Amino acid sequence: MAKPKNILFIMFDQLRWDYLSCYGHPHLHTPNIDRLASRGVRFDRATIQSPLCGPSRMSTYTGRYVSSHGACWNNVPLNVGERTMGDYLRAQGMGCWLVGKTHMMADAEGMARLGIEADSVIGARVSECGFDVFERDDGMRPEGPEGFYDEGGALAYNDYLRGKGYDSDNPWHDYANSSIDDDGNVLSGWFLKNSDLPANIAENDSETPYLTRRGMEFIEGQGDQPWCCHLSYIKPHWPYIVPAPYHELYGPEHFLPPVRSEAETSGHPVYTAMQKAPVCRAFSRDDVRDKVLRAYMGLIKQCDDQMGVLFDWLDRTGRMQDTLIVVTSDHGDYMGDHWMGEKTFFHETSVKVPMIVYDPSPEADATRGTVCDTPVECIDLLPTFLDVAGGDSRAVDHILEGRSLLPYLRGQTPQPKDYVVCEYDFSMRPVADALGLSTAEARGFMIADSDWKMIHFEGGFRPMLFDLKNDPLELVDLGDSAEHAEVIDRLSAALDTWSRRPSQRVTISNDTLLAIRKKPSTKGVMIGIVDEDDTAAELTAKYRNRKAQDRRAVKAPV
Amino acid sequence: MAKPKNILFIMFDQLRWDYLSCYGHPHLHTPNIDRLASRGVRFDRATIQSPLCGPSRMSTYTGRYVSSHGACWNNVPLNVGERTMGDYLRAQGMGCWLVGKTHMMADAEGMARLGIEADSVIGARVSECGFDVFERDDGMRPEGPEGFYDEGGALAYNDYLRGKGYDSDNPWHDYANSSIDDDGNVLSGWFLKNSDLPANIAENDSETPYLTRRGMEFIEGQGDQPWCCHLSYIKPHWPYIVPAPYHELYGPEHFLPPVRSEAETSGHPVYTAMQKAPVCRAFSRDDVRDKVLRAYMGLIKQCDDQMGVLFDWLDRTGRMQDTLIVVTSDHGDYMGDHWMGEKTFFHETSVKVPMIVYDPSPEADATRGTVCDTPVECIDLLPTFLDVAGGDSRAVDHILEGRSLLPYLRGQTPQPKDYVVCEYDFSMRPVADALGLSTAEARGFMIADSDWKMIHFEGGFRPMLFDLKNDPLELVDLGDSAEHAEVIDRLSAALDTWSRRPSQRVTISNDTLLAIRKKPSTKGVMIGIVDEDDTAAELTAKYRNRKAQDRRAVKAPV
Repeated sequence: MAKPKNILFIMFDQLRWDYLSCYGHPHLHTPNIDRLASRGVRFDRATIQSPLCGPSRMSTYTGRYVSSHGACWNNVPLNVGERTMGDYLRAQGMGCWLVGKTHMMADAEGMARLGIEADSVIGARVSECGFDVFERDDGMRPEGPEGFYDEGGALAYNDYLRGKGYDSDNPWHDYANSSIDDDGNVLSGWFLKNSDLPANIAENDSETPYLTRRGMEFIEGQGDQPWCCHLSYIKPHWPYIVPAPYHELYGPEHFLPPVRSEAETSGHPVYTAMQKAPVCRAFSRDDVRDKVLRAYMGLIKQCDDQMGVLFDWLDRTGRMQDTLIVVTSDHGDYMGDHWMGEKTFFHETSVKVPMIVYDPSPEADATRGTVCDTPVECIDLLPTFLDVAGGDSRAVDHILEGRSLLPYLRGQTPQPKDYVVCEYDFSMRPVADALGLSTAEARGFMIADSDWKMIHFEGGFRPMLFDLKNDPLELVDLGDSAEHAEVIDRLSAALDTWSRRPSQRVTISNDTLLAIRKKPSTKGVMIGIVDEDDTAAELTAKYRNRKAQDRRAVKAPV
Repeated sequence: MAKPKNILFIMFDQLRWDYLSCYGHPHLHTPNIDRLASRGVRFDRATIQSPLCGPSRMSTYTGRYVSSHGACWNNVPLNVGERTMGDYLRAQGMGCWLVGKTHMMADAEGMARLGIEADSVIGARVSECGFDVFERDDGMRPEGPEGFYDEGGALAYNDYLRGKGYDSDNPWHDYANSSIDDDGNVLSGWFLKNSDLPANIAENDSETPYLTRRGMEFIEGQGDQPWCCHLSYIKPHWPYIVPAPYHELYGPEHFLPPVRSEAETSGHPVYTAMQKAPVCRAFSRDDVRDKVLRAYMGLIKQCDDQMGVLFDWLDRTGRMQDTLIVVTSDHGDYMGDHWMGEKTFFHETSVKVPMIVYDPSPEADATRGTVCDTPVECIDLLPTFLDVAGGDSRAVDHILEGRSLLPYLRGQTPQPKDYVVCEYDFSMRPVADALGLSTAEARGFMIADSDWKMIHFEGGFRPMLFDLKNDPLELVDLGDSAEHAEVIDRLSAALDTWSRRPSQRVTISNDTLLAIRKKPSTKGVMIGIVDEDDTAAELTAKYRNRKAQDRRAVKAPV
């Protein structure tokens, strides 16, 4: 084993932490991901920065909180002024490549303002969140009356499918994400009643194995050049449908019961308003859950099998010896827990993600197979990668808001963070209208330490509070408990301090700020000096012994 | 009178509001600025966004708070991702030009990252804070053992002086900002003992008249093209020295007594630590104040005389009829008040600036000569200018944090702001070390409404509080008064909300956010829909009646 030369940054989409056997699922066995955990460190309190694909990923790719980079929702462009993973790694001589999904939307207005052409090298990188693109596949090719959700979605994958004989103008939909009946009718995977049916595709042609192969093709072509590969899968994200045999591996005997209580339905006004969304009502139905969980668990099992293919190949090719590997997700999936569907709120179901980091270096031998329960954040990955690439993440801690995880991997005991933060901006959701909130008000902020999680809402609501130690399922909201006022005050104060962090002071480093404190100006600015002899002679040297003519009487020009 | 076609945006540097006769100075008569006030609106509660040149100006030029744009101190580069006055005005067909000072430092790293060449049109604008440069003159050519403070400082002005026979490698220093003795020795204006001497320059060649002429030359050359001209003077900023006859117009009989109390010297720990800076100790001396006030008042009188030259010329050329004119400053100057020198703290002496706005349009006739005592901010100028140029500042209120002043000029009664905010980042000052503060902690935030001003410090200090109505000189700090806990709580809560403002959500407008609330996705994403008949048929149309072949049995590739 040597120092890692490369980074394989694997992200799944909408993968719950507790649907992996290494994180405790009793029936969904994921031996391949578990094997990586046994060779690395499994972080047991990894928190995303927003419970939604786009903002969560933009935080991971920039190493900054959502309110720092501003891309608060899917398809909100990332400001052209933000630095990305690719900027940091390429500066260290490491390539930074994309195979799969980012959910990046380019800041076309900002690029136009700065004269950046999208088809230039810099423009292409800025458009793709700093990645060089081996294959961009956001895994989404929905189509509605107003056209495609994503004009560039799954184009190469659709070409691949057509090349394999999947005849359709949109094989992504008709085959990969739908089933079929005996009369040849397409049964769309968008409709949850079809989620227990097999997708109309050979398993090996479905998107997860396809992307695994694309990832291996990328790695194979790299030669000796150090690389970071962001292998970024769309699954187990919806549409919830999976090809045979995965569609029939799991049934009610394998399902975890929904985590919810009646009391939750008359709780905090923002939370209960959220529960009224159609997706939450749907996932609160047992029949829907019964259909969808079969597909969701099957999709995860397929992901794990593909990890087996990939890790075996990495072992065979020697890449396991020189590659740091991360497996994580961009957020979870409520699946009816807490009367919610999707991910867009703050329970651990949604904001806690699996995070497994394998470091091939000898310094990491002591931590192999261990679990780290210190709270960490997904913004910690970029500083980790920068340090692996040979940089110094601390030197850019005026921009990067995360902290390198390397000390945890290498058996050191760094000072843990005081808290982790997750944000959710729902200013464009109908629920904001239902609650009468302005675009500034429709936002929530979660702050948590090892013991407590508080959720603050703008707009004048009380906070929510969960006792993570004694109520790990988060069924009892203590936000209006007088007994817990002190905890709430403490976390509120911490959130206020966090809110005032100098997140935009990105053009001067903290080291530079500290150095300037120590060193007086030596470029001739003399403020408040009465007499040249009041200060060091070398500072005033330029102003001593100068001669001039008397020009006070010069005639003014006519 | 017609709608204003052009904007003349005049800024002085370090000009106290109360050193103009229209703001109440009893001995310093400024009839020309007063005349503009009599033809426009004089804002009596205009607050800058930081008590220091660079950050204050970057806020004015971007329309955003300092913690939003991040350029927290002089010479800290403005992030290349920030939009500036020039971006907004040029989009409306109005030129945006600089004649004088900005204190802008280009984000060279950001420009390099984005491939922006400094000598391209876009690069030149980005480097100059969005202005096209008629003349950049930051008015500063100090030189010390490590070289010039500003490599590009006062170059054209120095050339001008040399052309007029001011023979020196640095006539800016040796003539414009120094005096001379009978033996030809240069008596540097950097040393306050020389502040009562006449500068060794013909008055007409000094920097204020020079810049006035440059401004008129610019305007003369514009023809019919609408323009915004930022005519930005260095004076009455230090070096405190002024040519004859201005050096001898004022003496002790014209000085305002220093505003200070003994109690202030043992007050809030941050404030008292600030008082220990050499410049504060110097300005607390009566002999220093006696020398410097002569120069400072003379410099202001000269500025006012130049305003007379300029406004007369504008009247003669007809430009007064089609030009909106602003006279303001970037901050004040303590001049020994509150035991402070310079500007770097939060008393009104420092953070309140003169702001006079003259609008030639008939809609403004009713407000001519009136005073507006509603609290406004310097970030309100850019939205005002954008509206004058024909744009709609409200449509970009997701970026601009100020509000147009046009309603005040035109006799409407807009809802006033709840509060104004000013920030001061002293993380690079020695006082931060003296107080043991980290770079994140060495920051203060002022929030004020019409009645109260509260100052919050990071790092665990109590706040400061002033009763602006009953203690307008701000001599009594009520920050530890139990009686005022409610006021402090209210302002603290307001500051917390302000701190969480979505200041980086700059790539999507509030109107767009609101529109998305009202309109369900019509691009094929179907979340939580169990059956296609559960939702509108047109939304699911693309997924109905599709046909496919059964491909589940396709052989996997070998």
